[in-house]
Amino acid sequence: MVLTTQLKERYQRVRRQSARICQPLEEEDYVVQPTGDVSPPKWHLGHTTWFFETFILSRQPGYRVFHPDYNYLFNSYYESIGARVVRTDRGNMSRPAVRDIYAYRAHVDEAMANFLESEAAETTEVRNLVELGFQHEQQHQELLVTDIQYILGHNPLFPVYAPLPPSAESPEDALETYSGVSEGVYPIGYGGDGFCFDNERGVHNVFLHPFRVANRLVTNGEYLQFMADGGYADFSHWLQEGWAWVKQNQVQAPLYWHKDQHWHHYTLHGPERVDPSAPVTHVSFYEADAYARWKGKRLPTEFEWEVACRQLNGEEIKGNFLESNLLHPTPGRAGDNQFFGDVWEWTNSAYLAYPYYQKPDGALGEYNGKFMINQMVLRGGSCATPRSHIRATYRNFFHPDKRWQFTGIRLAESI
Amino acid sequence: MVLTTQLKERYQRVRRQSARICQPLEEEDYVVQPTGDVSPPKWHLGHTTWFFETFILSRQPGYRVFHPDYNYLFNSYYESIGARVVRTDRGNMSRPAVRDIYAYRAHVDEAMANFLESEAAETTEVRNLVELGFQHEQQHQELLVTDIQYILGHNPLFPVYAPLPPSAESPEDALETYSGVSEGVYPIGYGGDGFCFDNERGVHNVFLHPFRVANRLVTNGEYLQFMADGGYADFSHWLQEGWAWVKQNQVQAPLYWHKDQHWHHYTLHGPERVDPSAPVTHVSFYEADAYARWKGKRLPTEFEWEVACRQLNGEEIKGNFLESNLLHPTPGRAGDNQFFGDVWEWTNSAYLAYPYYQKPDGALGEYNGKFMINQMVLRGGSCATPRSHIRATYRNFFHPDKRWQFTGIRLAESI
Amino acid sequence: MVLTTQLKERYQRVRRQSARICQPLEEEDYVVQPTGDVSPPKWHLGHTTWFFETFILSRQPGYRVFHPDYNYLFNSYYESIGARVVRTDRGNMSRPAVRDIYAYRAHVDEAMANFLESEAAETTEVRNLVELGFQHEQQHQELLVTDIQYILGHNPLFPVYAPLPPSAESPEDALETYSGVSEGVYPIGYGGDGFCFDNERGVHNVFLHPFRVANRLVTNGEYLQFMADGGYADFSHWLQEGWAWVKQNQVQAPLYWHKDQHWHHYTLHGPERVDPSAPVTHVSFYEADAYARWKGKRLPTEFEWEVACRQLNGEEIKGNFLESNLLHPTPGRAGDNQFFGDVWEWTNSAYLAYPYYQKPDGALGEYNGKFMINQMVLRGGSCATPRSHIRATYRNFFHPDKRWQFTGIRLAESI
Amino acid sequence: MVLTTQLKERYQRVRRQSARICQPLEEEDYVVQPTGDVSPPKWHLGHTTWFFETFILSRQPGYRVFHPDYNYLFNSYYESIGARVVRTDRGNMSRPAVRDIYAYRAHVDEAMANFLESEAAETTEVRNLVELGFQHEQQHQELLVTDIQYILGHNPLFPVYAPLPPSAESPEDALETYSGVSEGVYPIGYGGDGFCFDNERGVHNVFLHPFRVANRLVTNGEYLQFMADGGYADFSHWLQEGWAWVKQNQVQAPLYWHKDQHWHHYTLHGPERVDPSAPVTHVSFYEADAYARWKGKRLPTEFEWEVACRQLNGEEIKGNFLESNLLHPTPGRAGDNQFFGDVWEWTNSAYLAYPYYQKPDGALGEYNGKFMINQMVLRGGSCATPRSHIRATYRNFFHPDKRWQFTGIRLAESI
Repeated sequence: MVLTTQLKERYQRVRRQSARICQPLEEEDYVVQPTGDVSPPKWHLGHTTWFFETFILSRQPGYRVFHPDYNYLFNSYYESIGARVVRTDRGNMSRPAVRDIYAYRAHVDEAMANFLESEAAETTEVRNLVELGFQHEQQHQELLVTDIQYILGHNPLFPVYAPLPPSAESPEDALETYSGVSEGVYPIGYGGDGFCFDNERGVHNVFLHPFRVANRLVTNGEYLQFMADGGYADFSHWLQEGWAWVKQNQVQAPLYWHKDQHWHHYTLHGPERVDPSAPVTHVSFYEADAYARWKGKRLPTEFEWEVACRQLNGEEIKGNFLESNLLHPTPGRAGDNQFFGDVWEWTNSAYLAYPYYQKPDGALGEYNGKFMINQMVLRGGSCATPRSHIRATYRNFFHPDKRWQFTGIRLAESI
Repeated sequence: MVLTTQLKERYQRVRRQSARICQPLEEEDYVVQPTGDVSPPKWHLGHTTWFFETFILSRQPGYRVFHPDYNYLFNSYYESIGARVVRTDRGNMSRPAVRDIYAYRAHVDEAMANFLESEAAETTEVRNLVELGFQHEQQHQELLVTDIQYILGHNPLFPVYAPLPPSAESPEDALETYSGVSEGVYPIGYGGDGFCFDNERGVHNVFLHPFRVANRLVTNGEYLQFMADGGYADFSHWLQEGWAWVKQNQVQAPLYWHKDQHWHHYTLHGPERVDPSAPVTHVSFYEADAYARWKGKRLPTEFEWEVACRQLNGEEIKGNFLESNLLHPTPGRAGDNQFFGDVWEWTNSAYLAYPYYQKPDGALGEYNGKFMINQMVLRGGSCATPRSHIRATYRNFFHPDKRWQFTGIRLAESI
Repeated sequence: MVLTTQLKERYQRVRRQSARICQPLEEEDYVVQPTGDVSPPKWHLGHTTWFFETFILSRQPGYRVFHPDYNYLFNSYYESIGARVVRTDRGNMSRPAVRDIYAYRAHVDEAMANFLESEAAETTEVRNLVELGFQHEQQHQELLVTDIQYILGHNPLFPVYAPLPPSAESPEDALETYSGVSEGVYPIGYGGDGFCFDNERGVHNVFLHPFRVANRLVTNGEYLQFMADGGYADFSHWLQEGWAWVKQNQVQAPLYWHKDQHWHHYTLHGPERVDPSAPVTHVSFYEADAYARWKGKRLPTEFEWEVACRQLNGEEIKGNFLESNLLHPTPGRAGDNQFFGDVWEWTNSAYLAYPYYQKPDGALGEYNGKFMINQMVLRGGSCATPRSHIRATYRNFFHPDKRWQFTGIRLAESI
Repeated sequence: MVLTTQLKERYQRVRRQSARICQPLEEEDYVVQPTGDVSPPKWHLGHTTWFFETFILSRQPGYRVFHPDYNYLFNSYYESIGARVVRTDRGNMSRPAVRDIYAYRAHVDEAMANFLESEAAETTEVRNLVELGFQHEQQHQELLVTDIQYILGHNPLFPVYAPLPPSAESPEDALETYSGVSEGVYPIGYGGDGFCFDNERGVHNVFLHPFRVANRLVTNGEYLQFMADGGYADFSHWLQEGWAWVKQNQVQAPLYWHKDQHWHHYTLHGPERVDPSAPVTHVSFYEADAYARWKGKRLPTEFEWEVACRQLNGEEIKGNFLESNLLHPTPGRAGDNQFFGDVWEWTNSAYLAYPYYQKPDGALGEYNGKFMINQMVLRGGSCATPRSHIRATYRNFFHPDKRWQFTGIRLAESI
């Protein structure tokens, strides 16, 4: 009973968070999709609702589906669940209207509230599905933030999403130092009792040769040196496909950067001057890799990252997350190591299965496993990640050219 | 003074018509652009306003531009007027919000009302510009209707824009008959005192060999025979580029047609069963041309159309126009010849300059002349054309694969 | 009997001409297709042979097809004749080898020689088909020349196809003068007894308003003035699609032009300095049209061209043709009007059917009619056209962006 | 001195091998490039020659470059060495002619013969470069074979490259058995004295969990069961990008397979019936991965492969290589484990740097390192690999959709 109450409260908290993120939007902002990677905010709100409806409510006898066409509209990529709107057409769907989406959310929320009080909700399987629904919604909360930034940041009016919170004192720049990790066989993956995704499961050993890892993230100031040194014009720093990407897209700076007299970048608080002390963000894997090569270092592997995080940061999940409402990475202070929050950190590991990876049965088997090709792993969460969503073993993944997420750089080197 | 009052009233009437067309929309419908040819309704509302602001108000001392970025946002294709949002990005612009657009309209409407009372408004040049602004807005009213149909008709929910007006009695099918026009030299082009576009000017002679022209439009029933006879599967009816278009797009019926047990098509009143007596519409030039060849006839040239219209219809502009609110072509009754309204009629004439064509000076020289390549002429207006906008000499033009306008077929043959 | 001998000799003469054009090639040159418009020379040699085999020999009892797969390989665009290699794949076909193609030609030539002596060859229908085969082969001779130029001219080694013939004295520059044609109804189209294509048939009347036409072609020197005046950088001279074409392809000069210290262009004699007195060539319709607008003139219609040619040049077919072996346009001398030869002249007429156009039955109905959309008419033949192939009524046609043919400019103006 | 003689002989042997591979070709076959991955055989012959000229001869005083434009024509991807023909344009270059390429080879071979006798050739650095030239040429020998197969196998005439050698007795089918490898830390990478590529260097440890690996390759017969079971129609076996690849390319069988009454595939001996006992080849990583998932197994990692190869096969390099002239994988006999030769084996490892990877200085640093993204590792060599070219530590790499190499499948599973 207490558990049920807690679960219902958590349900409401998670669901309200999504609506809260959209609260500053104009209705028009909910609709558009300026690039294929981005989804319209109203699609995110509908899709996360569809997730609870499809995987939990629809399996309950007597549940009335809100609208028969919503499965077609809000299925993301589940082949098992049937046909769906082509991803790049999401921004062409003016209907359902925003208010219809909120009605859909209310309908499902009410049904979930009732369901969570029922006996049927007490099985482990259902509890796990509800938990997955929370985690899934949190992933889309991060996407809501980054997609809203993309939508507003590619509008010539550069609208402000939210005013900048009153700034804390500017910290002294943290020195760039490195910590060593010694050679050995280390366990990797999630072995606890809490929630984790299937792709983190199966604790297994990895042999690591000795390496050193930076105690903080690469800053804008450091990245500006790379730019000033002609980093975008010298092929020798770049992977071949990275160089082709630079040439084809005429890339000259991180996403959202514009040069006036000085470099500015669009943030959710509107255009701002680039802060040299803050971590660089909105860089692709190609840029992260080129920067590291230029610097004479390399990116850590995801295994090195996980071990270093445990050794240097410990178990505590602290940092600049969604809940800070800063919505932008902030300078690290001496002592911060920034393993969590601020920016997702590109690793030099391809997103592949762990040795004992088991794809779940049914449609949820499509959640993670089928993306294990051509993507690189990122670790640590960002300023748009809900704090309760991240872990040391969490494996995020994106194609190497993507940079509309809060993605940044931590350096490493072999010793 | 009376003139001024009339002009102000006309201004308000024309401008209100645009808002009236958008009245049934959800705010979300104003935003999207499901294909490059279509513009978001809010863009049309902004662009027609920009036209008055740019070509009239901005030239008046003391006029305060509503927003400095709107020129960039609402310029359509005027190279003379500067940079602009790429056409296919219009649907990515969530801002300005719909209410900002209406504020823009109110700002310009008020300034225009004041301006029209001023002495500066009394010159012929200005009167001509104001008239051009009306005509321009009317062109966009037609586009508003067809673009809204495209937006709603490509949404899986197939929303109803407006309920079907109570239907008149179903007319007896008009017989397909042909009238002859005898050989001779005929004057072509606009020679009157009223408004016309530059591309109609320069009355000149054309020699026509004798021909016959159908007394009404091709109907859905007739077109269904073409389909039933395998018209879309037999290359011999098609121009080569038309055949490639059919193959590449797997075209099997006019736009908006869906086959259930019977053929239905999406109209602004929602999906409806195809009426065999109504004129076929939403066909490309390729389809019109293939149908004519299958039938053993041909399309008229624009010169034949203009002469036949004068001989058979006379000067009266009658027919099913925007003002009927039917928003769909209707069956012709015996005696109707349907030269005006219902559907634009594809002709077998390329859109090229008349012998004495003069491109106007300045930015307005970009209005018509620069499009005189690779497009075919259409004549007569449609059920989405304001009645006061059309003339026998009016030359509309589209690429031969376009069919989201109300486009249809009239047959002809040489004798 | 005499007729048969003449026909056989003509057959051999035409067929040898194709081989003669290819004689300077390396075997490797026969194979490649550097752009979709160009076909490999061995394809032309095979296709023209296939034409005789398919439309004449295969209809004769007892004829043995040379190779069962050649129909698939050498059909160009005849849907009636069955499946074929995708056009852009022609350059991927290393086999049949060049010597196989020549064996194919020998096989068909021998069969044709026998056939032409048979009774079956004496019908008018067959004679017409043989004649069509000659004309068809001549069209491909022109394409062989222009395609070879494209192949060699896009090779970084810029190989010489044939040395420049000893040059005649450089003529004095012909003055640019204009001749008037008075208003009236004029007959258009071919009404003679000789061969013509279906698209020239059906003599009909056209009313022409008075106009003036230049007595010679636009020269490189004049075109260089357009370039020097920023012609490629000022949108106001260009059709909208022409301007997009300039921007997308970064066009700055005619095809084959390269700027060193001076402007050079690749010719079949290798790279040469551009001769200001010679007619400009390898310009698209867009360039021709923009030049005319810059100059304050316009292009003639195809009807104006045909009437002016008859009035100013008369019936004589004189000029710089394929037989001169110059393979490049040459400066006109005073008195030359250059209506024939040197360069095809872009007209401002779309390629459409004449009023009494009849598509031939069967596969040959696909020869001309199905291309009557989106192309512009050119008149007069070029330095790569066989002299016996051209007529005043001949209608050539290309899309407005094409310029690998010898295409140039004659100016006109209304009076 | 003995060393010099041996080196010269080896030089000649390697270089002759390339010419021998091309000996059965028609000149036309040397020229074409039916897809971007494939290069024209004459380009391979030129490029391997350019490699010796650029990296060895051009650095010697007094060496006369064969042709100043060949650097532009035959540079593959070395940004350090300057501009080059766009890769997809290689098949548009009819010149230099084949005989010019052989003259180029003769010129460089003579210069190399002289050079190898000089003192300058005796340094370790030069010896290493010469060795790299050999290995490089051997890589292109494999590409010559596979590219020739692509060129001939995509020609509708399906030409025979070489007759099938007299077949040995058909072996009894080897049973599919698995061998276990126990958990532990294993050394990976090349630590010997001979040649290896930079990407194999830096012996390092990898922890392996216990696994089992198949004793032979997956056969056509087994793959046909996957096909018969609807393997290409069931998304659940596929990675998401693999499924998109299947859909977009309508893939239904390995490359070169055609269904008549039975399945045939094009081999260099012409079309042949698919042999159920022979290893399946010309499958993409996507297909290999889907097959393994369907079978309830997985692909080995490259580390598992290397360790299993050492344990099960030992050091001996035996198998079906280029030298057998079979040019097609052959059924394994009981006892063969087929780790080497027949087909390259897809592993489930992304192509990434080893921990101690060092990119060489200068242009040769572009040889391997810059490709370390978005590609998967293959191991073991194929029937088109020269025997002396392969090692247990050799890392080949291709994008997961590529299948024109001899690529196949070995299964593994965790225990």
